[in-house]
Amino acid sequence: MTPNRITTLFGIRYPIVQAGMIWCSGWELASAVSKAGGLGLLGAGSMYPDQLRDHILRTQQATNRPFGVNLPLLYPDIDAHIQTILELKVPIVFTSAGNPKTWTSILKAEGRTVVHVVSSAKFALKSQEAGVDAVVAEGFEAGGHNGREETTTFCLIPLVREAVHIPLIAAGGIGSGRGMLAAMALGAEGVQVGSRFVATPESSAHAAFKHRVVEAGEGETTLTLKELTPVRLLHNSFYHQVTAAYERGAGAEELKALLGRGRAKKGMAEGDLDEGELEIGQVSASIRHVTPAAEVVREMVSEYNRFRINFPILDEFQE
Amino acid sequence: MTPNRITTLFGIRYPIVQAGMIWCSGWELASAVSKAGGLGLLGAGSMYPDQLRDHILRTQQATNRPFGVNLPLLYPDIDAHIQTILELKVPIVFTSAGNPKTWTSILKAEGRTVVHVVSSAKFALKSQEAGVDAVVAEGFEAGGHNGREETTTFCLIPLVREAVHIPLIAAGGIGSGRGMLAAMALGAEGVQVGSRFVATPESSAHAAFKHRVVEAGEGETTLTLKELTPVRLLHNSFYHQVTAAYERGAGAEELKALLGRGRAKKGMAEGDLDEGELEIGQVSASIRHVTPAAEVVREMVSEYNRFRINFPILDEFQE
Repeated sequence: MTPNRITTLFGIRYPIVQAGMIWCSGWELASAVSKAGGLGLLGAGSMYPDQLRDHILRTQQATNRPFGVNLPLLYPDIDAHIQTILELKVPIVFTSAGNPKTWTSILKAEGRTVVHVVSSAKFALKSQEAGVDAVVAEGFEAGGHNGREETTTFCLIPLVREAVHIPLIAAGGIGSGRGMLAAMALGAEGVQVGSRFVATPESSAHAAFKHRVVEAGEGETTLTLKELTPVRLLHNSFYHQVTAAYERGAGAEELKALLGRGRAKKGMAEGDLDEGELEIGQVSASIRHVTPAAEVVREMVSEYNRFRINFPILDEFQE
Repeated sequence: MTPNRITTLFGIRYPIVQAGMIWCSGWELASAVSKAGGLGLLGAGSMYPDQLRDHILRTQQATNRPFGVNLPLLYPDIDAHIQTILELKVPIVFTSAGNPKTWTSILKAEGRTVVHVVSSAKFALKSQEAGVDAVVAEGFEAGGHNGREETTTFCLIPLVREAVHIPLIAAGGIGSGRGMLAAMALGAEGVQVGSRFVATPESSAHAAFKHRVVEAGEGETTLTLKELTPVRLLHNSFYHQVTAAYERGAGAEELKALLGRGRAKKGMAEGDLDEGELEIGQVSASIRHVTPAAEVVREMVSEYNRFRINFPILDEFQE
């Protein structure tokens, strides 16, 4: 076993991070992944402060392995979440959707490991300057909210690798051992996996949404609502309403009204596959089964090791 | 040296194909890449029939290594191009932008190797059924014309790998040895490289365009004109005219009129960086120098070999 900067930073066995996704990443999923040797993250973005407290306590009861919380920095009651994280001694915080300057120094002063999620080399560098321990670089193919530059994982990872010296975790499109190997080839030291962990018995997504993810084929997700915050959605009735709105020339205000409030919960947590917002990555086209979280980790490690030693050898170039 | 199905199919040393790009891929580039052990392709899409004949003859004078022609199947005078390819005994034909059914059997009957370029697993399967010898699967990050599904290289290659049994070449976002390694990890047996070969002395692109490619940073290309044929363009005055047209709600007809005719030639061959259409991939953000084509091949092979043996080893999973 070769430890690397990601396994060492988090004190974990495998450089596999389970994304802290809204409506999908509760204590059952996070603790299952951490028990399996990866890093489980709670998705604080869809939890009220008392719910986050409850999920942290349950994760701590379920495992003494390291785990973390994903905290969107635009969360309205963020002070309450930060307070809970500090009080309950959560060791690792992944921040996203906001400026890492505000909270990084406070969390670092309390001895926490801080990782920020970015979609460009420019913001990776700003995160490094803000003092984070590592960055997640997330490509265009990722599910949910995403960057405006539309840089794909294949192009983003080398750019971020070149821009920063801190440890780098790749995200977007990764749900297999071969994907992990490809991410490492491009310069990542670990991977963050979202969609694949949605389709686990332990994820808190509604069973109907998990089933829909398994059914999804190629070309069935699109990055849309770019005038608001770009988000990758699975095609359904709501998505087609958005498309129709664009066709009649709707502006940001009309799109905002159409989106309304609570659509992500309706789709992902309550299983309304027609009217809900279904956030998932392009890699859903490769997901064929609901698989226990530990088995996802096992499969990824096994496939990674199998293909790691299987690359063709090329002769060095001679004129 | 491990031969694989791509090096064997084409009779080449390295599984590196230089894309047959309009306005950039003439005989100087194709012969330089073939001499270096890759597969050079002439870009027939921007050549009149007598020009294609001339470029084929010059390539044959420059090298006796294998080379090929990229032929967009929507080319207006395609019968003339096919006739030239058959008459001058070009051994390898990459077809794109059209239905492979029409010409594959004719080219195969004449003993030519036929490869079709696709952007989805669905069309990879149709190409296999049409009898092609291999497919190029090209992701969303690629320059120039592209698929509507927007599937990235990271997600596309595993889907195509699973869908077809014929040899698979990855394209889109690949311009380095690490990129080649990542593509192989995802299931490809070779790579097609476009943008990186634009920025070579041997490419027939205008010097001003090559310089602009080298200067391009992250987020400076966008897939646009989706109502016509989706195309990835470098941001310039023409691109901003397109953006402005969208903002005033322009339809397909207005966009078509704005695009007009000859813009790709104007930008890429004549070096009009303002009014021309500049087709290039996202990987342009990682291209820093104009580098001789043989040196690109050498660098890619050397970097591939260096990183191939450098992956961390993971312990097999245990409960």
